[in-house]
Amino acid sequence: MGKINPISFEDGKLILLDQRKLPHLTEYVEHEKPGQVKESIRNMTVRGAPAIGVTAAYGMVLSAQSCNLSDCNGILEKMKSDGQILKEARPTAVNLAWAVDRILDKASKLEKSDPDAFKNSILKEAVEIHKADIAANRKIGEYALELLKDSKNILTHCNAGILATTEYGTATSVFYVGREKGIDFNVYADETRPRLQGAMLTAYELHQNGISVTVICDNAAAHLMSKGEIDAVITGADRIAANGDTANKIGTLGVSIAAAYYGIPFYIAAPVSTIDFKLDDGSGIPIEERDGEEVSNISGIRIMPEGVSARNPAFDVTPAKNISAIITEKGILRPPFIKSIAGIH
Amino acid sequence: MGKINPISFEDGKLILLDQRKLPHLTEYVEHEKPGQVKESIRNMTVRGAPAIGVTAAYGMVLSAQSCNLSDCNGILEKMKSDGQILKEARPTAVNLAWAVDRILDKASKLEKSDPDAFKNSILKEAVEIHKADIAANRKIGEYALELLKDSKNILTHCNAGILATTEYGTATSVFYVGREKGIDFNVYADETRPRLQGAMLTAYELHQNGISVTVICDNAAAHLMSKGEIDAVITGADRIAANGDTANKIGTLGVSIAAAYYGIPFYIAAPVSTIDFKLDDGSGIPIEERDGEEVSNISGIRIMPEGVSARNPAFDVTPAKNISAIITEKGILRPPFIKSIAGIH
Repeated sequence: MGKINPISFEDGKLILLDQRKLPHLTEYVEHEKPGQVKESIRNMTVRGAPAIGVTAAYGMVLSAQSCNLSDCNGILEKMKSDGQILKEARPTAVNLAWAVDRILDKASKLEKSDPDAFKNSILKEAVEIHKADIAANRKIGEYALELLKDSKNILTHCNAGILATTEYGTATSVFYVGREKGIDFNVYADETRPRLQGAMLTAYELHQNGISVTVICDNAAAHLMSKGEIDAVITGADRIAANGDTANKIGTLGVSIAAAYYGIPFYIAAPVSTIDFKLDDGSGIPIEERDGEEVSNISGIRIMPEGVSARNPAFDVTPAKNISAIITEKGILRPPFIKSIAGIH
Repeated sequence: MGKINPISFEDGKLILLDQRKLPHLTEYVEHEKPGQVKESIRNMTVRGAPAIGVTAAYGMVLSAQSCNLSDCNGILEKMKSDGQILKEARPTAVNLAWAVDRILDKASKLEKSDPDAFKNSILKEAVEIHKADIAANRKIGEYALELLKDSKNILTHCNAGILATTEYGTATSVFYVGREKGIDFNVYADETRPRLQGAMLTAYELHQNGISVTVICDNAAAHLMSKGEIDAVITGADRIAANGDTANKIGTLGVSIAAAYYGIPFYIAAPVSTIDFKLDDGSGIPIEERDGEEVSNISGIRIMPEGVSARNPAFDVTPAKNISAIITEKGILRPPFIKSIAGIH
């Protein structure tokens, strides 16, 4: 696809874009052992739940390939042990455990007579997981394009892009799919304080791929909307309740309220796996309050007086009534979401 | 009043708090010559239109005092020349020219037989200007307290405080007047990207004066409102139109929209001099777009990729319908503002 490829597997090596060095340096790290993969997940060389899942799947491939036993059951035992180590890299990442278990499940069902065939089948399964993520993202972009093809200036918040998933990303997919089809957008990226994922990551990946992108301070979004300079908003999601209430990066709520105020369409782009069908509404979503240091220090420099503290809620919940549509790989969900979400369950 | 005093005149010297070193260092600079005052206005040792006006008035006092002529008309000529130099320090600051001209006007009307009496009368006039600003700010705080006395958690945006005016400030006055009367508030200060005046200045002055203050990222305000953690919002104003539309620091508009969404009172605190009675509504207010470097670099460190640009609108316009009341030194103006504003004209 584009110029950046955060995860690839070539010649028996897993190659990850080192996201810790973005946006100033584009460097790749090669992995040949599962222990190296664990370390890269732990130290956030790779980040974003779907990206971590795909990385872990390839970590399991490295586990199998680096095992010199000629006994497939022995290889499987080694993989189970490495899988446990990989899972511990970031214990709360759902996609990580899911990907490790899917590979182990596949491995346990494989024919065990030929170690080379066994290892090849493991690789195929990992590639399958990778391809499925890319395919889902591409599908999200195609559906989003149906909604946005007549829009020009699109605002996005945080990074729900290639760097957090695999190719295309979720919220960003429409820009890349649009580009493939000759439809160009002007993207406004909220800088997304405190961690600045919009300025650092979204701006980086769109710019690298030749998509027009301009960064704004989060607090400038309403002003641009008031001047008619935003045609639509699209963001990712961390968790979607059965009624459509959506938890996402802090600031998404404010953008959704301003969009509703100005009658600007506000879209969520996310795979169906983000929907928590058992969660009635957003009131039950716990909001992580992170260390105030993320707010009070930027690039290691303190921006407020000593002795003053900062609040740092990391997410907020956008009520379903502010959302024009939820775009998934299975189609576009429209209000009332309680019906459309139940429909794809 | 409190522990910080940005402008004072003692023993023939003008003493300014060096705002360039905030919030990390509290240092004062002494001035004995008008040329030093010009330099401190130019290099932003002092900032904020009312504060610059008071500073310039004292600069004119130093001009008179440092003149050794025994002829009052000679002193006046020296003051006119120094006044011109002071005005050039920041040519667009209305309060600067206004204060210089008021002192010169006073000087031209004074009895000219006794140089010492002449110089003393100039000092009295400058103190008058200073006291009038403090009195107006205090009045704003008293009126604001009528509205806020039963509230606890108040959000403010940018810095409309002591550091931009004189004692009390405008939006901050209610916190200081409340403190004098035994009414304490918990203040949330939006950090106010890109220049971070909330984190750097509002947090500094409230903390120095013992007012409870917590900094949040601009984009967290809507979340706190959704959780019932904000009882009211109060901000300053740069320009108020005859219908109540109010230009203020970028981000004010978004806060006002979120406050309206959650039914939270949103107040503007500003002196009557901020009202532009000839301006029908906010659509005629030009919005300064500043250099994108203010967004893309924080403390000299670039936060976005090379080659990507940032938009940096410095102000926005909050529509009158989002404003619950405008608090001036002459009383509380309520909707419909077109009537209440005309009433004080």
